[in-house]
Amino acid sequence: MNVVDLIRKKRDGNVLEKPEIDFLVSGYTKNKIPDYQFSAFLMAAYLKGMNESETSYLTDAMLHSGKVLNLNSIPGVKIDKHSTGGVGDKTSLIIAPIVASLGIKVPMISGRGLGHTGGTLDKLESIPGFRTDLNLNEYKSVLKKCGAVLIGQTKEIAPADKIIYSLRDVTATVESIPLITGSIMSKKLAEGIDGLVLDVKTGSGAFMRKTKDAETLANSLISTAKSFNKKVIAFITDMNQPLGNYIGNWFEVYESILVLKGEVKNDLYELCLNLAGAMIFLGGKSSSLKEGKTIAQEQIENGKAFKKFAEIVKLQGGKVDYINHPEKYPRSKFVKKLVADKGGFVDKIDNYQIGMASLELGAGRKKLGDKIDPKAGIIFKKKIGDKLNKGDVIADIHSDSKSKNELASGMISDSITFSNTKTTKPKLIKNIIM
Amino acid sequence: MNVVDLIRKKRDGNVLEKPEIDFLVSGYTKNKIPDYQFSAFLMAAYLKGMNESETSYLTDAMLHSGKVLNLNSIPGVKIDKHSTGGVGDKTSLIIAPIVASLGIKVPMISGRGLGHTGGTLDKLESIPGFRTDLNLNEYKSVLKKCGAVLIGQTKEIAPADKIIYSLRDVTATVESIPLITGSIMSKKLAEGIDGLVLDVKTGSGAFMRKTKDAETLANSLISTAKSFNKKVIAFITDMNQPLGNYIGNWFEVYESILVLKGEVKNDLYELCLNLAGAMIFLGGKSSSLKEGKTIAQEQIENGKAFKKFAEIVKLQGGKVDYINHPEKYPRSKFVKKLVADKGGFVDKIDNYQIGMASLELGAGRKKLGDKIDPKAGIIFKKKIGDKLNKGDVIADIHSDSKSKNELASGMISDSITFSNTKTTKPKLIKNIIM
Repeated sequence: MNVVDLIRKKRDGNVLEKPEIDFLVSGYTKNKIPDYQFSAFLMAAYLKGMNESETSYLTDAMLHSGKVLNLNSIPGVKIDKHSTGGVGDKTSLIIAPIVASLGIKVPMISGRGLGHTGGTLDKLESIPGFRTDLNLNEYKSVLKKCGAVLIGQTKEIAPADKIIYSLRDVTATVESIPLITGSIMSKKLAEGIDGLVLDVKTGSGAFMRKTKDAETLANSLISTAKSFNKKVIAFITDMNQPLGNYIGNWFEVYESILVLKGEVKNDLYELCLNLAGAMIFLGGKSSSLKEGKTIAQEQIENGKAFKKFAEIVKLQGGKVDYINHPEKYPRSKFVKKLVADKGGFVDKIDNYQIGMASLELGAGRKKLGDKIDPKAGIIFKKKIGDKLNKGDVIADIHSDSKSKNELASGMISDSITFSNTKTTKPKLIKNIIM
Repeated sequence: MNVVDLIRKKRDGNVLEKPEIDFLVSGYTKNKIPDYQFSAFLMAAYLKGMNESETSYLTDAMLHSGKVLNLNSIPGVKIDKHSTGGVGDKTSLIIAPIVASLGIKVPMISGRGLGHTGGTLDKLESIPGFRTDLNLNEYKSVLKKCGAVLIGQTKEIAPADKIIYSLRDVTATVESIPLITGSIMSKKLAEGIDGLVLDVKTGSGAFMRKTKDAETLANSLISTAKSFNKKVIAFITDMNQPLGNYIGNWFEVYESILVLKGEVKNDLYELCLNLAGAMIFLGGKSSSLKEGKTIAQEQIENGKAFKKFAEIVKLQGGKVDYINHPEKYPRSKFVKKLVADKGGFVDKIDNYQIGMASLELGAGRKKLGDKIDPKAGIIFKKKIGDKLNKGDVIADIHSDSKSKNELASGMISDSITFSNTKTTKPKLIKNIIM
């Protein structure tokens, strides 16, 4: 097989066969195909697309660049959830314990903050002592003991993804449905799961701003998952405003605790019930999505979900004291209150800018290696559809720097559009595809 | 300026500005932009195209990556010809002396054989002693003395072209009109010319097989030449069969001698009169293309063109004795006669395969660094439209290897389609664009 012929084939819009995609991916991953040829291929794939079978072959080639975990020694159905990322999206912290408390196994390999979006690993690491760098043996051991585990990608898992993503990042080939599908699914399939719930975000704070694009991605993820005989359900959910009310690493752990204790019943709570319900359904513990949702709610009400969360934190080395007594957690030196200078209704939020404001506060990384301030963040008091009176607090902005707070306050203020007439809340779940 | 933003801009089909194209080309040429980013840009440019102004900016950036010759110290108008390459295309050897014999300066920077096509430099070097590696001072000196000079590309001339072409070659981004235009025009403009005649080949032995594609390329070359205020005329000419009757390096010098002496008046002769006539017209020595053609013919008839050819050969170090007495030139050890096994008419020729057959004989290079046998080649006795009787010789095949002759004979035989009914000769000049 000749690399130039394969690039030409994709360039001319033809469909690549499995051995051809294997040859490209394994050749590049093993350093036998140079960067400059693979980037030309990536651009051709970006512009000419890849069909369902090509996307499945790509995923397979990336998956088999590393280890595919075998969790057969651990009893129970293994179900995971994947979110395409957003602002204030801490659902993993809530649904993993809900679902695990029912005996379904939840093996989660998560990521770090990327651009304006937060990352599950960064959030968990705000809990002192919490280790996300478990090796694969520890991973299996925690999963076996408590039914859920949340770690970062190890070098054994789909190494092709990291290598290819680095190249996509510098060649303007990130935003491609088949390439995104290969990236997500190769990692998820390597976990050794039986089923997957997808939370594909859409709106101003999502990578897929348009619902149509989110649905296209969801369909691509679903058809790829099915080609690997995995059970799968995708939710298309709103990301036109932060999910829940808290943004920032510890803040999001804190809000997760509130939801797990049943103390807060906001949009975050609602979405978690839906996602956990779908996992329960895929895990065979309910006969419908609706019943799954009811069961999820029960696990919150009966305290089992919160108890499971504390168990996971303990097994992964986190100080459970902070989970039981979050009031003990250190606080930021300064709090800036963003106050409404006139009355009205919250109409629109540029949620990308909200994510960028939290980055400025130190809740995320501007560049690789930046240190995160786990305390920093934003508490949103008003969301789309809410009424405001002059002087009402829109958001509390927390960090150790007054100037950062001022900068973030300005960004948040600029991101929000108000209306004099009543506005409507965006629909949280826009579509369910299965 | 950010490379990824520029790749994205082209990827999304937007038009790049001059400083952006300068940044990309000069960055890549100076090793500040890595291969993998430039190849992603090339693929985006291939698939999304570049408009007239972008193509002109690309040409300009490539041109200014090296030296632009100033020939002001040499009196006379400077006119060159460029052919997109074909099988048996030795027009440069004929028209340079015709035009130079009239006082028009012909500064030619030519290439070597590429794939199935021959190269002017290889042909000239079959003349013992002929030097194509003159430096720029020698180049000017020969041009001043005899009015024409034929050399290879020096490292001072458009170095970006060589660097970019090498990358295009391994990333399936060769066949792109704007990229081809930049490559051709940057080198031609660097010669310091006032005008250019283009011979864009079309047919089975050309890079542009379809006349429509050849016309698209011609129009792109013309608009770019005009954007640099150069006089330009393009001929779209037939390459569905070898041009003239001889293929192979010395064979083509030999046929050039026959034409320059007025001893052969075939399709090669006809095309040379047209191209030389256009150069004479652009050089201001005729008031029309037709008159230019008549003057070109006169220069052959009066012996001045042949005399000029001998002068060029002598000034560039070639042994003129072989030009005056070509019968003294060494011959191949073996000659294979390809004979018709039945009567009929020549209908079609796969001219690409004819070029490949000459490569097998040693008349070209299969890979960089291969040694050429200057004696090897093919003499075509029958061309499209010609009648054949059983036993007629179709071609004489010359090389120092019987097995190579057999191989080439089979390839040539397979390339030719015969008809029982009379066939028509292809139209030599399909279009003239100016």
